[in-house]
Amino acid sequence: MNYKPGLHILLGIHSENAIKLKDEAAWMLFIEEQISNFGLSQLGKVSHKFDGDAGYTAVHCLTESHISIHTWPEHNYCTCDVFLSNYQKYNNDVTKNISANIIAYFESINYELKEHIR
Amino acid sequence: MNYKPGLHILLGIHSENAIKLKDEAAWMLFIEEQISNFGLSQLGKVSHKFDGDAGYTAVHCLTESHISIHTWPEHNYCTCDVFLSNYQKYNNDVTKNISANIIAYFESINYELKEHIR
Repeated sequence: MNYKPGLHILLGIHSENAIKLKDEAAWMLFIEEQISNFGLSQLGKVSHKFDGDAGYTAVHCLTESHISIHTWPEHNYCTCDVFLSNYQKYNNDVTKNISANIIAYFESINYELKEHIR
Repeated sequence: MNYKPGLHILLGIHSENAIKLKDEAAWMLFIEEQISNFGLSQLGKVSHKFDGDAGYTAVHCLTESHISIHTWPEHNYCTCDVFLSNYQKYNNDVTKNISANIIAYFESINYELKEHIR
């Protein structure tokens, strides 16, 4: 039987909250609180704030896989990925809960959410 | 009009090459050569080799977005993501070319490839 690691949720989020689309530090605090609250294991992270009045990009590498974000405040938009494998425990509900919390973080009422079973 | 950042390719790769599914260092050399050859801009990276006869996980954060891999050699399997935005230039062909090169790297004849337009 083919191995199925787990659920990957791809988000495209429209947000009118320009501050949150530009504030890399606030995102890092928010997402690391999520990682901690849901008992995930962070292996490392990379983040970068683009120059000027621009967006940021960040990836958190986890034992369970990864969470990423890329923001385009000039388009009131960001993409996020939440991919958690079920290697150590079943994480599909955590993937869904973190995705919902990200949507709430950006106060978004207009978003695309794609569930990709890997 | 809604902003469309670019193409994200999600790969599920079956490979009989256990060495490449375990060799984190070889992957880092390979993918960074790809990043360089295609003129992409690396912002940072995280990688981790799991203990014992296990797999590895790596994420390269790029100006253009990110490339990630998670391997499960015990299942002859890995997942990869190649997501490049078209912010600075049109990168969809690069996304496809790097994905094809990853499949060739793992000498895979059995894989799932999903194109997700973001």
